Amino acid sequence: MNTQTHLEAFDAVDLIRTKRDHGELATPQIDWLIDAYTRGYVGDEQMAAMTMAIFLNGMTRREIKDLTLAMINSGERMSFAGLGKPTTDKHSTGGVGDKITLPLMPLVAVFGAAVPQLSGRGLGHTGGTLDKLESIPGWRAHLSNEEMFAQLRDHGGVICAAGGGLAPADGKLYALRDITGTVEAIPLIASSIMSKKIAEGTSALVLDVKFGSGAFLKDIELSRELARTMVALGEDAGVATSALLTNMNVPLGFAIGNANEVRESVEVLAGGGPADVVELTIALATEMLNLAGITGVDVAAALTDGRAMDKWREVIRAQGGDPDAAMPVAKENHVVTADRDGVLVEQQALPFGIGAWRLGAGRARKQDPVQHAAGIDLHAKPGDTVRAGQPLFTLSADEPERFARALEALEGAYRIGDPGEPVLDGGPLIAERIGR
Amino acid sequence: MNTQTHLEAFDAVDLIRTKRDHGELATPQIDWLIDAYTRGYVGDEQMAAMTMAIFLNGMTRREIKDLTLAMINSGERMSFAGLGKPTTDKHSTGGVGDKITLPLMPLVAVFGAAVPQLSGRGLGHTGGTLDKLESIPGWRAHLSNEEMFAQLRDHGGVICAAGGGLAPADGKLYALRDITGTVEAIPLIASSIMSKKIAEGTSALVLDVKFGSGAFLKDIELSRELARTMVALGEDAGVATSALLTNMNVPLGFAIGNANEVRESVEVLAGGGPADVVELTIALATEMLNLAGITGVDVAAALTDGRAMDKWREVIRAQGGDPDAAMPVAKENHVVTADRDGVLVEQQALPFGIGAWRLGAGRARKQDPVQHAAGIDLHAKPGDTVRAGQPLFTLSADEPERFARALEALEGAYRIGDPGEPVLDGGPLIAERIGR
Repeated sequence: MNTQTHLEAFDAVDLIRTKRDHGELATPQIDWLIDAYTRGYVGDEQMAAMTMAIFLNGMTRREIKDLTLAMINSGERMSFAGLGKPTTDKHSTGGVGDKITLPLMPLVAVFGAAVPQLSGRGLGHTGGTLDKLESIPGWRAHLSNEEMFAQLRDHGGVICAAGGGLAPADGKLYALRDITGTVEAIPLIASSIMSKKIAEGTSALVLDVKFGSGAFLKDIELSRELARTMVALGEDAGVATSALLTNMNVPLGFAIGNANEVRESVEVLAGGGPADVVELTIALATEMLNLAGITGVDVAAALTDGRAMDKWREVIRAQGGDPDAAMPVAKENHVVTADRDGVLVEQQALPFGIGAWRLGAGRARKQDPVQHAAGIDLHAKPGDTVRAGQPLFTLSADEPERFARALEALEGAYRIGDPGEPVLDGGPLIAERIGR
Repeated sequence: MNTQTHLEAFDAVDLIRTKRDHGELATPQIDWLIDAYTRGYVGDEQMAAMTMAIFLNGMTRREIKDLTLAMINSGERMSFAGLGKPTTDKHSTGGVGDKITLPLMPLVAVFGAAVPQLSGRGLGHTGGTLDKLESIPGWRAHLSNEEMFAQLRDHGGVICAAGGGLAPADGKLYALRDITGTVEAIPLIASSIMSKKIAEGTSALVLDVKFGSGAFLKDIELSRELARTMVALGEDAGVATSALLTNMNVPLGFAIGNANEVRESVEVLAGGGPADVVELTIALATEMLNLAGITGVDVAAALTDGRAMDKWREVIRAQGGDPDAAMPVAKENHVVTADRDGVLVEQQALPFGIGAWRLGAGRARKQDPVQHAAGIDLHAKPGDTVRAGQPLFTLSADEPERFARALEALEGAYRIGDPGEPVLDGGPLIAERIGR
């Protein structure tokens, strides 16, 4: 699929200066830049200067579209045209306790759509879907393209690692942005996410764009801009795309970690689970099905009547996992209790995410392993009445020396107030929908 | 002299994000950044993102001062305290035909000051003083610190290559800026120039800050800001510093190249030479002497009575050069003549600089040699009356195939108008003085 440009067609310094001086890069310049960077002709130091210039001076919609297409063209492009059923996918910008992919994939597959969930691993305080699923004994994250295709055809759903063949320029660029302070730029986030999703070949895509303290972009305005940019990129590429702007001021559900998030997802698939996780799972499933042309179905019923659970077990087994196996349990627990009677008025997502990360649920460097049983289980959510001495949350870790630094992160992260005091949860879970 | 910081004291990404988000870096953060970069702990890609953020978001005076000090502290610091005479130096930001250092150094030395001219080589269209002097058979650019000190003591002047021991962080950072489009940032230019000059140990310094089409910074406003920033840095470091803002819209003198610029400098030392070169040489010499506390002397007289020429011959000989040797002559010449009668109303510095560069007088890459006899000799200056068929300028090169590309650069670079038409020379040669 690679479209190779002439390496001497442009000069990297000229292009950097153009963007530095608030100019617009032409389509062949962007094509050249991404190709020459992928092939190592444009150096990391040059691309770092360019990404900082993009961060500070922005890109036009046309430039972002060209950047996305150039990254798609840096690698292979998959097609699910031969499946004989509509494909529909979801991408979340990442949040604390965000395990939605786990119940969502089987729930959507129940209704005859194929769900090709190419997922990643966590870096920083937000966990990765693959890390969570690897808590299940035997489950394999890495499938060949043929295995993925066969599983979608036979079972309707797959969650697996994206191969290095999809948008390799994005992989290289993302690693660079991570160490050069240029992660949070909308043109770069949008092209990174959408290049992979478009190259993946899904025909419909729902974006769960988070805002609030535990999200990547705190500000709802920025999240809205990102969502609009990505929806336009998807539609331009022929992918039916919509976005929900969802609240990440409070952790999603009660479980933050890996194995405990799988456990909570199974509760949802069994017809129970936390109200917020259920609400978001149903909303995203409905969006995914609508975009795939499957309408008028009772999505919620598939959670209570066992169909989604059956699909989950089928898909986990197909990837070598044992859905009945015992999940890892942490060696040590530390319970934090309420110091007074009152109402839990605040529970900030970011510190709980950092706390779980410090317990071992996340990784500091790409090569680090995660500790599957490490994490935090909440016992109360904002608005709940609590009594002095009642457990508020439990920290779990394999190494008890991790508790102190996790507790440090959690200082001031929650507060018990008086009845009637306003609850600081940042408003409704689903704030807005963007799309046609 | 190195002040080593703790490598893990700060995180490069945090510092990049601070500058990216318009924040101010603290003194220990800047010290750490420069030390960690010099030692390779902060990577080129991280420093490239940082320099682009500095380019676009600027630095406060305090940050620029800290950056300059940190670069000085990355290497050795010289002292001429034992010389028993005042030291005074000049730095030019670079221009087309700028050979002023050559007549200036002996002229100032005549009056008992020591002139430690640590110089560089040219890159791009502006030539380097060392390249010009290497046209003289036998002349050595590289001296040890001891040789330099001895020559200043015994002869009062030296022009030689700056050793790698002075501000090594600047050398590394300059090479990075060159390939990442971040050369023209005032905080980075100012700290680069001043770190070397302060580390060199001169007690007085005159800055020749060029503006106009042939200068590094075209805009006089930016040149003024650069000059003010550098004067403040010098004064803060205890170096008596002033700056002249000088016009670089028209080439300086008649010679643009290497050997021909030496020849023209010798003409000035013999009491002749082009009026603009003489004017600027005398103005800068007067500044340098004033700052060194040497006042009330007749500077111009030393050019006409042979004292400056004697000093030149003495200093060239001290560095192994033969002031009487024949200078290299180009193999091929190409004369461009006037196509009509009239007045030369325009002669743009930049295209003439690029033309000379393309003839072989400059280098495209650091490792390239220069061709000492290549260059351009002007036969008329703006305001001169010319007749059809009269030579306007001569191109010289060792390789005649270079003429075509040089002539291409010169298209539209000069114009013969009617008598009475305004001459587009950008105003007086010396526009402004900055300093106490």
